Amino acid sequence: MEAVDDADQLPETPKNEVMSFFESAPPLKDAAETEKSLKEFVDRNTSLSVNRKANRVVCVTSGGTTVPLEKRYVRYIDNFASGHRGAASTEYFLKAGYSVIFLYRRGTCQPFCSLLPDDPLLECFSVADDSNIEVDPLHAETVKRAITENRAAVADGTLLKLPFTTIFEYLQILQLISASLRSLGPSAIFYLAAAVSDFYVPWESMTLHKIQSASGPLDMRLAQVPKMLSMLRNEWAPMAFYISFKLETDQDILLAKADMALKKYKMHMVIANELSTRKEEVIVVTEHEKVTVRRDSTQAGAEVECPLVELVVDRHSAYIKKVDA
Amino acid sequence: MEAVDDADQLPETPKNEVMSFFESAPPLKDAAETEKSLKEFVDRNTSLSVNRKANRVVCVTSGGTTVPLEKRYVRYIDNFASGHRGAASTEYFLKAGYSVIFLYRRGTCQPFCSLLPDDPLLECFSVADDSNIEVDPLHAETVKRAITENRAAVADGTLLKLPFTTIFEYLQILQLISASLRSLGPSAIFYLAAAVSDFYVPWESMTLHKIQSASGPLDMRLAQVPKMLSMLRNEWAPMAFYISFKLETDQDILLAKADMALKKYKMHMVIANELSTRKEEVIVVTEHEKVTVRRDSTQAGAEVECPLVELVVDRHSAYIKKVDA
Repeated sequence: MEAVDDADQLPETPKNEVMSFFESAPPLKDAAETEKSLKEFVDRNTSLSVNRKANRVVCVTSGGTTVPLEKRYVRYIDNFASGHRGAASTEYFLKAGYSVIFLYRRGTCQPFCSLLPDDPLLECFSVADDSNIEVDPLHAETVKRAITENRAAVADGTLLKLPFTTIFEYLQILQLISASLRSLGPSAIFYLAAAVSDFYVPWESMTLHKIQSASGPLDMRLAQVPKMLSMLRNEWAPMAFYISFKLETDQDILLAKADMALKKYKMHMVIANELSTRKEEVIVVTEHEKVTVRRDSTQAGAEVECPLVELVVDRHSAYIKKVDA
Repeated sequence: MEAVDDADQLPETPKNEVMSFFESAPPLKDAAETEKSLKEFVDRNTSLSVNRKANRVVCVTSGGTTVPLEKRYVRYIDNFASGHRGAASTEYFLKAGYSVIFLYRRGTCQPFCSLLPDDPLLECFSVADDSNIEVDPLHAETVKRAITENRAAVADGTLLKLPFTTIFEYLQILQLISASLRSLGPSAIFYLAAAVSDFYVPWESMTLHKIQSASGPLDMRLAQVPKMLSMLRNEWAPMAFYISFKLETDQDILLAKADMALKKYKMHMVIANELSTRKEEVIVVTEHEKVTVRRDSTQAGAEVECPLVELVVDRHSAYIKKVDA
């Protein structure tokens, strides 16, 4: 579903189209502040040593981008994505000693929270007679883990969370991240799990006010989002290790598209997901092999992201060795 | 933004169009269970007396409906709505002695939680050295209030929460609610604050799998959602008290459309919201007057929903008297 790697049959997006996408996009709020926190984050994590894999930083993108249909943003097209894949993968990357930039859709699943109910505050807590707040014993361990591990990662400075909503924000922040990770060369990973819009209404041609219902049906023409993955891969951070995702509902289309994305965008790995089985298994497609990764179904709460991230870390280590050799 | 009362210039939706919308919609999951909990809820709340306004039940709709573009539901069109208006209004209706059926979009703002940060679990709690969970003193009162008042309302049986995501679910559940409230006559209120889609892709003409990007732009044709408000108002629960909402980004269009909706759908009140000022003030449009309702800006945390619901309750009481006379 990625804008960046869907429609692989298409010719490369010309650079001027990419430029004009950025030039016509609404300016990113807090751009200077985001750049500053990225700089501090990268500086801190490249000077770490004890117990950390020095210099290894992964940018995990997570959740779906939206495409506004009106500038004032009443209606928009959205992509379904709970953000579970990105949130769970972030946990395993942190465990593996990586620093993580978590670029996530506002309101989607957060790291260390994927096993909690949808509304943990109202579902896990109660107020006792002495007016102390108590946790439901059933959820106590999960809640404690969520709070402590999230706090620890943020306090350690090994997890930086950056939220987005629209396709414009997503691509603008991704560009800032690539600029800050470029100097890390092969030690940086882009783990692009977000569901990025394929089609959008160019900002300049967008109506300012709410679309008024007229008599009869509504006809809409949406333009293709320029394929940014080529720019990111070849120009913004050309030495990084790249992993993109393919989600399809039709198994027949899936592997063909994964192969195409691998070649066209020179990905190091493409993770192929089929919508109905994606929590049980994924197929990891690389230049030389296709590996099916399954969750350990003998263990309660085991997630497919655990062996998946292990495999990614293994291949990333090999990649760094090869580049450094 | 309501499907039910936008495009007021249009002629009434023919009944067969409404029928065919429901017939072609995907079947509602848990329909029998929803009917059962509605029946129990209405039975319980019409036999209450002490400290409650017996028989008075309000159905508050809240948040935006989605329109799937594919049956497997990867992409959809969404309407922006935090659900804050509906959640806050629910609190004030409960305080006023009403029982509330809260028909809300999954993931949107919940009653008693509107003053909390976006992610209360990660932002308000910490784990102490003795491994007890503690609340950040800054948020302690708000958190306690959210937990106790929500629990109390659900435990008392005066608050019934029913979630929806798509336009299909929303309209199907609304029909079940109207069937269960019909017998209450003028004691029932429909407070329709949800942002309902105007346009949709009819289920039958929808693609099963993900739309594949082709070369060039994507052309989409969306059909109008049949205007259900007439059916609800005139046939499903004709004696109830009706309040609908108009949200526009253009002040000039707003009042004209509110007036039109009032007349065309025989609403008792239409609440006119301008997107940029809607948290400060709204204009309540009735047959004989336009009243501007403002939040009490001299009081910290005061919400516009407090005087708004007061006004609604006042007019509802007058309506019941008039009908009963």
